[in-house]
Amino acid sequence: MSLPSLRLKANADRRLRSGHLWLYSNEIDTKLSPLSAFKVGDQAIVENAAGKPLGVALLSPQTLVCARLVSRDIEHRFDKSLLVHRLNIALSLRERLFDAHFYRLVHGEGDLLPGLEVDRFGDTLVVQITAACMEPHKDILLEALLQVCKPTGVLWRNDAPTRDLEGLERYLTVAYGDVPEWLQLLENDLVYNAPMLQKKVLGWNYDQRFNRLQAAAYCTDKRVLSVYSDVGSWAIPAALAGASEVLCADASPQALDALENNAQLNEIGGTLLCAEGDVLETLQSLKADEERFDVIIADPPAFIKRKKDLKSGEAGYRKLYEHCIRLLSRDGIFICSSRSPFFSEESMHSTLLAAARHLDRNIQILEQSGQSADHPMHPAIPETRYLKYTVCRILPNS
Amino acid sequence: MSLPSLRLKANADRRLRSGHLWLYSNEIDTKLSPLSAFKVGDQAIVENAAGKPLGVALLSPQTLVCARLVSRDIEHRFDKSLLVHRLNIALSLRERLFDAHFYRLVHGEGDLLPGLEVDRFGDTLVVQITAACMEPHKDILLEALLQVCKPTGVLWRNDAPTRDLEGLERYLTVAYGDVPEWLQLLENDLVYNAPMLQKKVLGWNYDQRFNRLQAAAYCTDKRVLSVYSDVGSWAIPAALAGASEVLCADASPQALDALENNAQLNEIGGTLLCAEGDVLETLQSLKADEERFDVIIADPPAFIKRKKDLKSGEAGYRKLYEHCIRLLSRDGIFICSSRSPFFSEESMHSTLLAAARHLDRNIQILEQSGQSADHPMHPAIPETRYLKYTVCRILPNS
Repeated sequence: MSLPSLRLKANADRRLRSGHLWLYSNEIDTKLSPLSAFKVGDQAIVENAAGKPLGVALLSPQTLVCARLVSRDIEHRFDKSLLVHRLNIALSLRERLFDAHFYRLVHGEGDLLPGLEVDRFGDTLVVQITAACMEPHKDILLEALLQVCKPTGVLWRNDAPTRDLEGLERYLTVAYGDVPEWLQLLENDLVYNAPMLQKKVLGWNYDQRFNRLQAAAYCTDKRVLSVYSDVGSWAIPAALAGASEVLCADASPQALDALENNAQLNEIGGTLLCAEGDVLETLQSLKADEERFDVIIADPPAFIKRKKDLKSGEAGYRKLYEHCIRLLSRDGIFICSSRSPFFSEESMHSTLLAAARHLDRNIQILEQSGQSADHPMHPAIPETRYLKYTVCRILPNS
Repeated sequence: MSLPSLRLKANADRRLRSGHLWLYSNEIDTKLSPLSAFKVGDQAIVENAAGKPLGVALLSPQTLVCARLVSRDIEHRFDKSLLVHRLNIALSLRERLFDAHFYRLVHGEGDLLPGLEVDRFGDTLVVQITAACMEPHKDILLEALLQVCKPTGVLWRNDAPTRDLEGLERYLTVAYGDVPEWLQLLENDLVYNAPMLQKKVLGWNYDQRFNRLQAAAYCTDKRVLSVYSDVGSWAIPAALAGASEVLCADASPQALDALENNAQLNEIGGTLLCAEGDVLETLQSLKADEERFDVIIADPPAFIKRKKDLKSGEAGYRKLYEHCIRLLSRDGIFICSSRSPFFSEESMHSTLLAAARHLDRNIQILEQSGQSADHPMHPAIPETRYLKYTVCRILPNS
């Protein structure tokens, strides 16, 4: 059966030809190919204004990004065979990078699989669908995953609030086999348990793997504060690197329970302390108590989820940075991350600078990087480069 | 003796207040403080338009950047005592980062020492002065370096072509003690000899220390090409990581001699091969011979030295990238760096994308980072973030 055409307006093919995968609804020649003729998840051959075919796309006719390219070869439509092919390409990278099966296996557009994120925890796969056009293809997706990875369990972790924007319902269900309530994983030779069957927030982000390793190197013999400590992915390597004390601040009692469990798993004694409660309030009360830390590591959730939240999100980062910098000892290290795709590295640096200047401190940027290599970026799609990681040294003004 | 004033025009203090260290000649109120009254290297108290003091600056009245802030405290003028203070702050960072004395000790504005770069090779210091305003202070600078580091030898390595722009002569002379012709150094537990008393090009850049470690991890069992291989800083870790073969391309016979010497030092046998000659010609002839490599590492010199060379420099990178990508095997890793401060990470990625698309390849960006932590960036001065490092995976189009 031949696929219908999706005809572009004049010059609307430029972005695709330069490597991008997305089409916006205002780029479609809706006289020749009305979007209303398509259902969510339908496939089409994308054509430029002259009718030249450019590839195969999945459609999501109701959303701003109305189509995503899944193949540049019109002979290769989106089916189980294409999925298996893409998964094998993704897998071969991870097998090259890592000895054990603990990693992000599929990073959406970065792996040419729009709207799909798959994390691997040994024999269990945790799958997130983030774009409406992918949702109707769950059956062949599951088949392809089973074929390529032979997991004993697959979880649909489709409970992210961002699904609302795509008009998708939220759910968390086992798609195949058995999924234990806690998944055990290895990262940088440490063992962690991450709760996966709980809704919201908790889980595991492999994206900071290399950064966590480097951050721990700053912590030997130091008093460390882990802000938004989650299940201990920063605090535990810091403690094992020889920190004299690690205080973990998080609002979630479940996260801190998991953290304490992970500390036991890695045989960490009394160097880890927990402060449960609103993170900014914790920082304020530490300041009131005149506590000081040599190293502060802040890994907040994304403050900027949509472009229109940029201003308020920047203000949020600025506030967090100031709270943290105030708690640093005289020659302190501030390690911070942002998961907001719209908060550029330049904005992060200038926000850090503004916070430091406001507090009359000097700031040096020692390191900067992004997400780990199992979260590949697509260079045409800045959104795929979401993680910014920076190590700063904060000194008195002089 | 009180210092003269350097009065700014209205609002010209904003950049300084936000953290920057430079003043441009068109920002000076030359009626109240004529630049012609100053000699190169003179100090002045910088004042805003209302006469409020902002700090102490060193002057270079003939150049576009006519003054550089050296202190925000007007009681602390630029003297040996301030230099010793700054050097101690710089040293304490490096002692925190590294076990042995092999690192960049001073990274110019990033260490609040404008126009000064000091590399440490154990007991030997190699000093570069890059701004005219620092040159007249060589005597106290040497005294301060001797006091803080107690070296057995200090070299003025003031032979960079960029000194011409500052109206400085080029020279390479021993400033103190003995400086051996070859300096031995340690990086990531490997030993290298770097020729320091030869003019131009050769030497050692500590700025890629962490990147070299990560790059080597991609090379196990692979055929590797090191482009602009210099004295072997990429090729030798690659060979020791188990590369099946490493071909080193460089135009300089001296560099390749040093590379072979370093290969012997690290007991590397026949896996290293050298291709001497113009690098692009070497890449072309490898293509003509249908050679293919699994990993290509390119660390070219800065193609863009001044802002006005941006276009031609970008074209240079594009050409280099295409030559390299053509030589990659079907699922290849391309690791590339840029040392051009005016070539942004975004520009680098879009140039990589354009090169890959032109050759009908898909590209994933796996890693990106910058210079090592002993080359701190000043967040207000983008020029201090000069090194961009990117790991890409190049795949067939699909």
